[in-house]
Amino acid sequence: MNDLTHFDESGRSRMVDVSDKSPTLREATATGTVSMQPETFERIMGGRIEKGDVLAVAQVAGIMAAKKTGSIIPMCHPLNLTSVAMRFFPRHGQHQIEVQATAKIIDRTGVEMEALMAVTAACLTVYDMCKAIDRSMSISDIRLLKKSGGKSGTYVYAG
Amino acid sequence: MNDLTHFDESGRSRMVDVSDKSPTLREATATGTVSMQPETFERIMGGRIEKGDVLAVAQVAGIMAAKKTGSIIPMCHPLNLTSVAMRFFPRHGQHQIEVQATAKIIDRTGVEMEALMAVTAACLTVYDMCKAIDRSMSISDIRLLKKSGGKSGTYVYAG
Amino acid sequence: MNDLTHFDESGRSRMVDVSDKSPTLREATATGTVSMQPETFERIMGGRIEKGDVLAVAQVAGIMAAKKTGSIIPMCHPLNLTSVAMRFFPRHGQHQIEVQATAKIIDRTGVEMEALMAVTAACLTVYDMCKAIDRSMSISDIRLLKKSGGKSGTYVYAG
Amino acid sequence: MNDLTHFDESGRSRMVDVSDKSPTLREATATGTVSMQPETFERIMGGRIEKGDVLAVAQVAGIMAAKKTGSIIPMCHPLNLTSVAMRFFPRHGQHQIEVQATAKIIDRTGVEMEALMAVTAACLTVYDMCKAIDRSMSISDIRLLKKSGGKSGTYVYAG
Amino acid sequence: MNDLTHFDESGRSRMVDVSDKSPTLREATATGTVSMQPETFERIMGGRIEKGDVLAVAQVAGIMAAKKTGSIIPMCHPLNLTSVAMRFFPRHGQHQIEVQATAKIIDRTGVEMEALMAVTAACLTVYDMCKAIDRSMSISDIRLLKKSGGKSGTYVYAG
Amino acid sequence: MNDLTHFDESGRSRMVDVSDKSPTLREATATGTVSMQPETFERIMGGRIEKGDVLAVAQVAGIMAAKKTGSIIPMCHPLNLTSVAMRFFPRHGQHQIEVQATAKIIDRTGVEMEALMAVTAACLTVYDMCKAIDRSMSISDIRLLKKSGGKSGTYVYAG
Repeated sequence: MNDLTHFDESGRSRMVDVSDKSPTLREATATGTVSMQPETFERIMGGRIEKGDVLAVAQVAGIMAAKKTGSIIPMCHPLNLTSVAMRFFPRHGQHQIEVQATAKIIDRTGVEMEALMAVTAACLTVYDMCKAIDRSMSISDIRLLKKSGGKSGTYVYAG
Repeated sequence: MNDLTHFDESGRSRMVDVSDKSPTLREATATGTVSMQPETFERIMGGRIEKGDVLAVAQVAGIMAAKKTGSIIPMCHPLNLTSVAMRFFPRHGQHQIEVQATAKIIDRTGVEMEALMAVTAACLTVYDMCKAIDRSMSISDIRLLKKSGGKSGTYVYAG
Repeated sequence: MNDLTHFDESGRSRMVDVSDKSPTLREATATGTVSMQPETFERIMGGRIEKGDVLAVAQVAGIMAAKKTGSIIPMCHPLNLTSVAMRFFPRHGQHQIEVQATAKIIDRTGVEMEALMAVTAACLTVYDMCKAIDRSMSISDIRLLKKSGGKSGTYVYAG
Repeated sequence: MNDLTHFDESGRSRMVDVSDKSPTLREATATGTVSMQPETFERIMGGRIEKGDVLAVAQVAGIMAAKKTGSIIPMCHPLNLTSVAMRFFPRHGQHQIEVQATAKIIDRTGVEMEALMAVTAACLTVYDMCKAIDRSMSISDIRLLKKSGGKSGTYVYAG
Repeated sequence: MNDLTHFDESGRSRMVDVSDKSPTLREATATGTVSMQPETFERIMGGRIEKGDVLAVAQVAGIMAAKKTGSIIPMCHPLNLTSVAMRFFPRHGQHQIEVQATAKIIDRTGVEMEALMAVTAACLTVYDMCKAIDRSMSISDIRLLKKSGGKSGTYVYAG
Repeated sequence: MNDLTHFDESGRSRMVDVSDKSPTLREATATGTVSMQPETFERIMGGRIEKGDVLAVAQVAGIMAAKKTGSIIPMCHPLNLTSVAMRFFPRHGQHQIEVQATAKIIDRTGVEMEALMAVTAACLTVYDMCKAIDRSMSISDIRLLKKSGGKSGTYVYAG
């Protein structure tokens, strides 16, 4: 049904009732990109920051944030993810880092928000750890790349 | 000092020591923008969603997330904000909603991450509440607009 | 069995073992009432507070608190609610607002505490948002109205 | 100013700016009462529940909840309490237990909500631990008894 | 498979994918021991601390911490425990208190970390409540005693 | 005063009132040690686990847990740490890893528990990330090494 499902009859928000849905495997992948100064990119990727630790911390942040999605996004159902995985794609020419996160669950509702939350927290962590040298960083193109499972089926971002 | 201040000598991350700094008034404003389908925009802004509640929920989400920043971003100091305020700027032509958040504190470290977290959580909440009708929404241009206070002084985004 | 089930043999508290129970649909509805000065009531309900936002914030607070019940009430099982819905009933003559919350789950234990927590957090939020003009507000008649599902069956408050 | 201070100009809620206030000692005491069946009261108070542990757990719940107030009540400032103390007053004739909580802080805003949250969480914990034998319990008369400190001065409930 | 399962191909950590596993009953028991000065032990066990409340608070702390394991240990799956029980074994001769915790769940992954977290939080709570009289306390021998359920079967600590 | 300061007159626990204390610089260092099988140690330290990531994740876990101390240990005051730093000392002969954490604050109460919590969470994270290959690991010798600041002055573990 083509509805803003978080609103009840009187226009107020609610947590959508999924009691009637069946638990099935749900999977979602989201993406986001941090843009930065060339020097910042060089220092993160291998220059003067040893061992890529910015991304190691960002990855832990993303995974932990995915688990907290239901306590940050008001109308999200609390969910027990069965998997969260993150990948980082450095784009040398554009001095950008793309972050992707994939979340999985076997439950009655999807995990798009969990994947988006993981991506967002990881990007913000990159910002936080580098802001002392580069306050002009920006985060863009946060979106859902793909989701599968559930009654609404598979969605793939058309690009 | 022009350093990635979250790393100690051996290359590992840490929460930067701010014990020597003085508590002063710090303020930061961040921005982010949700882009969506025209119909989604119309329904949020006044059409078939009564009373703009998507933005009301997004605003509460942003304020509550700002307070949790230190538990989401690993190297952020825990902080007791003295103020968080959010504003929403609909851009009718582009069917976008810009979200701005301003955070304040009187403490030894700045609140840029708190403002960014508020913006991000609000944008994700808009996504969550409308995703049933529009999975292609994206969030972009998350950045710091301005910050003041502290030893590094005032920063204004050059645009 | 008619027992204070949160205590083990030696008189200490514990989180009751529900491993042997079957997951079934459980539902609970709770209620609570905020009493206030007539002027406070008028301002919330339509007078000088635009758009009923006190109740909008209270509703978000209630839904988010329901999801945190297991981390606030020590012996409650952590649960992933499948639905939370809230309703507000203004009583003009008594300048009171009654708050009702209904929670649902498919699990091995009931959701009475989640419904009660949602009601309570919503009532406290009303208090918080109006306390600058009315410190004498009070919250009363917090109780379970109805619950169904599980081995103990259906309970309806006798009034 | 006699205003609903959680709303900004456009009618939306915000976390009130207290940056201009001075940190002073603030104190608040709140109360709430659980009413129950006579047998429930007897078992809690000394009969077949050894050592009064229901109240011990309720007390821990109240203290821990007071510390979480800013993450449960949306517009509350996050605060670092310097003290929380709880007292329980059994009323044998009415088979009721009154819960009182006193919170203190040296900060720019008051702690009324923290005291109210402590009382409420303790009352709900009593409910939770006894609900297997008495689902008809109710919680009432949650209110502020007294507060002091800050620009608005001392308030004492008139009864 | 004999692998450090929290690392993906490129050496980064992740939350292991358990989507393919079957939900079965999992159980784990962990232990830990607090060593202290003889006077501290005497005061906890019955002397001048009435009613053993240190252990009552430690028990609540352990149970509540077990529920938070997934938000403290980065790569742990969030889990909804069906049971947590704690036991305290005073060792008079050595003025030690051994803490044991048993956690249960019906899910796709084990609860070893939940049992260990419960034990650890309880031991730290004992430390916290007695540190004013004994800063030299130490906590040792935190380990898994037994676990059962799941593909890796039963493990019993060999001593 | 030589008292178990977490108990009030009637033997119940409370969060100690520190309103009368002065904010001064407080610092605490704690330690803990994970013992493991030789092969586990080798794989963590450089063998088949690339880049020491177990310790990187453990370090993030420790820092984040330090910030949550007040929500895990019931009678701890909530505190805004100004610094947390962690160090790892591998002991090749004994195939042990010692974890040390130092916390700082300028406040009315000490940070011993925060340092101990950081150490404990880091040790448990090492356990979690290696438990698939070594369930017999144990954590011992968790203790305070040093603390300074506040009325009780400096304490150094005598060893």
